[in-house]
Amino acid sequence: MTVVVYPGTFDPITNGHLDVIHRAARLFNRVIVAVAESRNKRPLFTHQERVEMVRQAVQDVKNVEVEGFTGLLIEYVHRKNANAVLRGLRAVSDFEFEFQLALVNRKLSKDFETIFMMPNETYTFLSSSVVKELAWLGADVSALVPPHVKLALELKFGRNKTE
Amino acid sequence: MTVVVYPGTFDPITNGHLDVIHRAARLFNRVIVAVAESRNKRPLFTHQERVEMVRQAVQDVKNVEVEGFTGLLIEYVHRKNANAVLRGLRAVSDFEFEFQLALVNRKLSKDFETIFMMPNETYTFLSSSVVKELAWLGADVSALVPPHVKLALELKFGRNKTE
Amino acid sequence: MTVVVYPGTFDPITNGHLDVIHRAARLFNRVIVAVAESRNKRPLFTHQERVEMVRQAVQDVKNVEVEGFTGLLIEYVHRKNANAVLRGLRAVSDFEFEFQLALVNRKLSKDFETIFMMPNETYTFLSSSVVKELAWLGADVSALVPPHVKLALELKFGRNKTE
Amino acid sequence: MTVVVYPGTFDPITNGHLDVIHRAARLFNRVIVAVAESRNKRPLFTHQERVEMVRQAVQDVKNVEVEGFTGLLIEYVHRKNANAVLRGLRAVSDFEFEFQLALVNRKLSKDFETIFMMPNETYTFLSSSVVKELAWLGADVSALVPPHVKLALELKFGRNKTE
Amino acid sequence: MTVVVYPGTFDPITNGHLDVIHRAARLFNRVIVAVAESRNKRPLFTHQERVEMVRQAVQDVKNVEVEGFTGLLIEYVHRKNANAVLRGLRAVSDFEFEFQLALVNRKLSKDFETIFMMPNETYTFLSSSVVKELAWLGADVSALVPPHVKLALELKFGRNKTE
Amino acid sequence: MTVVVYPGTFDPITNGHLDVIHRAARLFNRVIVAVAESRNKRPLFTHQERVEMVRQAVQDVKNVEVEGFTGLLIEYVHRKNANAVLRGLRAVSDFEFEFQLALVNRKLSKDFETIFMMPNETYTFLSSSVVKELAWLGADVSALVPPHVKLALELKFGRNKTE
Repeated sequence: MTVVVYPGTFDPITNGHLDVIHRAARLFNRVIVAVAESRNKRPLFTHQERVEMVRQAVQDVKNVEVEGFTGLLIEYVHRKNANAVLRGLRAVSDFEFEFQLALVNRKLSKDFETIFMMPNETYTFLSSSVVKELAWLGADVSALVPPHVKLALELKFGRNKTE
Repeated sequence: MTVVVYPGTFDPITNGHLDVIHRAARLFNRVIVAVAESRNKRPLFTHQERVEMVRQAVQDVKNVEVEGFTGLLIEYVHRKNANAVLRGLRAVSDFEFEFQLALVNRKLSKDFETIFMMPNETYTFLSSSVVKELAWLGADVSALVPPHVKLALELKFGRNKTE
Repeated sequence: MTVVVYPGTFDPITNGHLDVIHRAARLFNRVIVAVAESRNKRPLFTHQERVEMVRQAVQDVKNVEVEGFTGLLIEYVHRKNANAVLRGLRAVSDFEFEFQLALVNRKLSKDFETIFMMPNETYTFLSSSVVKELAWLGADVSALVPPHVKLALELKFGRNKTE
Repeated sequence: MTVVVYPGTFDPITNGHLDVIHRAARLFNRVIVAVAESRNKRPLFTHQERVEMVRQAVQDVKNVEVEGFTGLLIEYVHRKNANAVLRGLRAVSDFEFEFQLALVNRKLSKDFETIFMMPNETYTFLSSSVVKELAWLGADVSALVPPHVKLALELKFGRNKTE
Repeated sequence: MTVVVYPGTFDPITNGHLDVIHRAARLFNRVIVAVAESRNKRPLFTHQERVEMVRQAVQDVKNVEVEGFTGLLIEYVHRKNANAVLRGLRAVSDFEFEFQLALVNRKLSKDFETIFMMPNETYTFLSSSVVKELAWLGADVSALVPPHVKLALELKFGRNKTE
Repeated sequence: MTVVVYPGTFDPITNGHLDVIHRAARLFNRVIVAVAESRNKRPLFTHQERVEMVRQAVQDVKNVEVEGFTGLLIEYVHRKNANAVLRGLRAVSDFEFEFQLALVNRKLSKDFETIFMMPNETYTFLSSSVVKELAWLGADVSALVPPHVKLALELKFGRNKTE
């Protein structure tokens, strides 16, 4: 049985993240989406809000679980007896960052394994930052995030601008 | 008749931006330099100051106009009946960012077109951030920005250090 | 009036090239597709065959012309009184190559201008080499090239394998 | 049960490839190493030699099989009822190539999935080309390939230079 | 006699920096490690702390000196009569940043020379930011920084978590 | 005393190479330009011709020597008691290739050191391949190579086309 942890800030979860989760759920026995607290990055949504939004987004996929986590990823992975960490790759810039992160984690724990998957090409450009920027500017983000995330963004930005 | 919008924060405008504007003015009927408000990036100069500095820098090029804008770029482009957005490319890192931005905009509006041009190679290294950093450290930036921008930088940093 | 030259080997022309040509035809008064002879690259199709395939592919776009050319691109551009050269950018690796090419041409001729445009994201992966490799392996390339190019590939590879 | 295909030319197999295979064998139920014929690349070793060298190198890993294959990768993957294709990533340049390949394959077959894994950092620089170049120049390649591959290289280059 | 300046924020110095310093000390007559004040980056350690940590780390290498500096790097290099600036390169992303920095400095001072060296491959992933992030999360950083830096990090983060 | 080896195919030497050599000659006691035989790359000029062209190009720089070499670079460096190998970096693509080469050499010989320097930005685009392509097409390459190399190119291509 193969268990993978898919960690991230998910501030908020996008259709690109969801696409990766669905792909992983078809390949691995269990996929644990691990929502990082991320005090440094100053997220738009609270840790609890982010966990909830992910949970709602994946509730229909049965071998996917969602959890918040704090602290070192390698310790979390050990606690969960997971076999590998899963990361999505959209573009070259992603890759270099992820590559270094994977090397760091392998340094800290020799048996740490990272697996990379690619979302559908239509999500190449999609990141949580792009979604927040667009929502803040009043663009319609229905094609980029699940409906409940769109709603949460509108509430957060105190308006309901969709054309 | 082809109208292009050249958007940016221009905090402040550099000789690299100006080089791109002059090149575009030779190829297109109208070039609209659109100075973004950019609340997130916390610009050094106010929106009004940035618009004014660009205006003064391009006043001698007759088919170039300067405007401040807020909100979504794609809506601005529609309002202006522009055919395309123009972006300068200096280096590989630029390219990847611009590529993703262009994809996002095309996603939001199918007929959105982005055109890329390259400044003169002597401006490869030149960005508004580099100029601000150098001016702040007291370097002579006369070769990098128009004279009125150099003056504005000196006023902003409360000194007049040129060796 | 703005005239752009879109040079390439077009061995063979793909739907990605066509997408760039259609985009350019909407922005510029005349688009000259210049099919390079390219003795070094040992093309699969002869110069004449490549010119013909491009011509057939763009016959319905009225401000687009097709010509074969040999020799230096900068001289061809001068002879045609063109304002700029157009190149498509699909990915980071493309960009670096194109960037250096543009710098070389600017070195040889100060008024040489290069404009970059992006094909639709669904063609990000598409190149003439990929098409040839796939056709040689017997894959169905109908979604990647115009029908007459597909036919030409099948004839060239001496078979008619479409599943 | 998850089955992955690890395709390549393996001309010859290196310790970097082996490292990826061992990592995959711990995560997936079956790993099929698929040695491509690769007529275009003009391999140093024959298809049969390459299959044999891989087979000998992985004979001690029980859930790994080795096969030669010709034709389209997507058809091979279907025939094998594999869930995904596995590719190793060593560096940024690798990534961009692999990314485009994965997009092409997904275009040809919607359910085509690619998984990327990283070899140990000590193999970052290691490729079959580097090994061949070094062996040809007479360098000691014992740290880079299994002993039987080292021997095969020495035979191929008609000498036995190890200092 | 060749004197090189190795500038940086060193917040804090890592084993990767030290590796570069030792390599440089074998090639050049004098190596001056210049610890930048860096008001913008909001360092974790004070300027004085960072200078002290570097000094302690290199005290056993006799042709290496350590100094704090403020202001323009090119002026500092001139004052020191140094022949070149030394920078470490770990990865592609580093390179592009360093490349632009070197071009800027050459623009400001024609005789400005930059030399690049690579740390041992085991430090490819290592940066001061990674070290701080890991230390903050409570990971054991003994393999990444000298012992006195590890101690300083533990004091700074108000704990002594090593597992 | 620091001795560096600057290896390459130099097919032919360009003004970019020369720029790097002059910069190195100011920093190091001895610079040995090592012209590789390079049977694989099928050079345009013979090994002897390339050595001669480099020799003539650097005859006025007194601490620079030129030699042809065959075989492994690390062995040549040992024989010469050189402290490091010097390589020029022009762009990101260069860097990745050089990075991997440096790692390979360090793997083969622990004390192998590589130093990177940047040519003047006006040579960013310049490579031996570009020069050969342009000369073959009849472009004027006087700004890109020394006069005797220009002559040699014209003789090789059997013409004397300069406009």
